[in-house]
Parts: sequence; structure tokens; C-alpha cells
Amino acid sequence: MIIFGIDPGTAVTGYGVIKTRNNSITWLDSGIIATNATGALAERLEIIYNGLLEKMRIHAPDRVCIEEAFYSRNVHTTLVLGHARGVAMLAARQVKAVITEYTPREIKKAVTGNGNAAKEQVEYMIKVLLSPPEAHTRSDAYDALAIAVCDFYNTGLTSLR
Amino acid sequence: MIIFGIDPGTAVTGYGVIKTRNNSITWLDSGIIATNATGALAERLEIIYNGLLEKMRIHAPDRVCIEEAFYSRNVHTTLVLGHARGVAMLAARQVKAVITEYTPREIKKAVTGNGNAAKEQVEYMIKVLLSPPEAHTRSDAYDALAIAVCDFYNTGLTSLR
Repeated sequence: MIIFGIDPGTAVTGYGVIKTRNNSITWLDSGIIATNATGALAERLEIIYNGLLEKMRIHAPDRVCIEEAFYSRNVHTTLVLGHARGVAMLAARQVKAVITEYTPREIKKAVTGNGNAAKEQVEYMIKVLLSPPEAHTRSDAYDALAIAVCDFYNTGLTSLR
Repeated sequence: MIIFGIDPGTAVTGYGVIKTRNNSITWLDSGIIATNATGALAERLEIIYNGLLEKMRIHAPDRVCIEEAFYSRNVHTTLVLGHARGVAMLAARQVKAVITEYTPREIKKAVTGNGNAAKEQVEYMIKVLLSPPEAHTRSDAYDALAIAVCDFYNTGLTSLR
């Protein structure tokens, strides 16, 4: 099964793709889609959408997992994040993937055993679990891989019950 | 010139299309895209996106105008609205339209002369200005037509300067 994780954002959207077989997981792809900070919001959304859709068409994921939105103190930030999540969800629908959402806490807990783990701890565990090539290890890409791993643990455990 | 107004929402998205020539405007199309309240968010976003894109491909608008998001007291509402606006903006980019945004206040002011006008007053003025056919006059469709008319007044006046 192919699982495609997304850490959405208008400035930088991270993606991470893993392949699962029985109880093992392997890294397939990861990276970031960066947009120009001076670009119009609609233009940036199109870059995110096209970028994600291109990667999804390459990997044909069975499942697409998106980090649940945090509620920023700045309501404008929350609103803009909603735009990015909207086009990410739309891309996932276009490739007919099952879509799941996880909170940052669920993701950290699944990957490190601690829902309050530091970012570095999540990155460390992703390195141990997946050994992604150096060129694919931008911070937002780690987060996206962590979302995919979280989904694997959640669905894997469910199917073993 | 063809102007396409959108009043985005995950439950009901209104659209309104007008044609401008010199200083006159005529109604072309208007209506709503309604989604199933029990559907998953991603599914609803796809319905909105496909519905808007279909209408935009028919009318080939030069300009697409979207109501600026209000900030609800409920931050979750604001976030979800962001998702709907995101896919609406993406659809507008796909047809290469110029995208503009107006606040509810600007829209009311442009259509009625009063930025605090009641909803009924906006509807009344849209009826007077555009005489849309009865079957196309759901409340959210009026709002979308008002956005398009607002854009006409704003760009029309600018080009006359």
C-alpha cells in the first residue's frame, strides 16, 4: 500500500510517501513545495495543488493523510491555512485516495510514543524508521513522512485486531 | 467582459455571472452549488470545485470575484470557510481569470450605496439592476451577483478615470 502524507502550508507544503508491505515500511519520496511569498494567494494555491497532484499521479497513493489544522491565535493564519488544506484535499480526491486526518499530537505519539515530543525527536525517529536520502529531508518533509507513518500504525493496528 | 461572482461556503456556494458592455450590465447566469451536509469535507470541496469549474468553462469569465472571508467568532467555521475559498480560487486560476476580492461592506456599498445595508436591500437592488429569472434567485445567488456588480462598478469607474 502507498501512503502519502501532507503537511500543508501556503509558504511551504511538505509531502512524504511511503510504501507498506505486511509490517514493514520503506521510504519512496519526500520533499517540499515552496511558493513565492510575494505571489497572490490564488497563484500559491495553484502551485501547491499542481505540485501535490503531480506527485500523487506518480505514486498513485491508496491513502492520503493530512495534518489537522492547528488553531492559531491569529485567525487570519488559520483562514489562510484552510485555503492550503482545501486544495490539498481536492488533489487527494482527484486521485481517488482514502483521506484521513491526524492531529499533531496523534502524529507525535505514533512516531515517538510521546504526544508532546519535540520536533527533533520526530525527525530522529523518521530517520531511524525510513532512512530518507539527505536531499529529501527538509523539515516539512519529515513532518509529512511522520503523518504517513502515523497512518500506517493506525490502520495497520486496526487491521490486525 | 464577463464577470463571475462567488459567495463561497461548504454547505452552499452561490455564483452569479454578468456581462458588461460599456456602462450596461446584463444577467447571464446564477445559482447555487449545494453539498450534502453529511458528506466528508474533501468530497464537498470537490463538488464545489467541479461545479464552479463547469460554470466557469461555460462562461469563460475575464474576472472572478470572491467575497472576502468574514472572521467568525467560531475559529473552526473560519477554517472550514478557508477550505471552500481555496478551491474556488483554484478554479478561477484554472480558467486564467483575474481574481479580485471584496469585503461584504464594499459589496453592499457598491450595490446599495450603504455599506451596512440589509440583505433584502441588496436583493432588491440586484432585482432592479439585473432582473434575474425567478428560478435563479436563491439568496446565495443574489449575493454572488452582488459581488460581480461590485466588481463592475469598481473596475468600470477606474477605467473611466
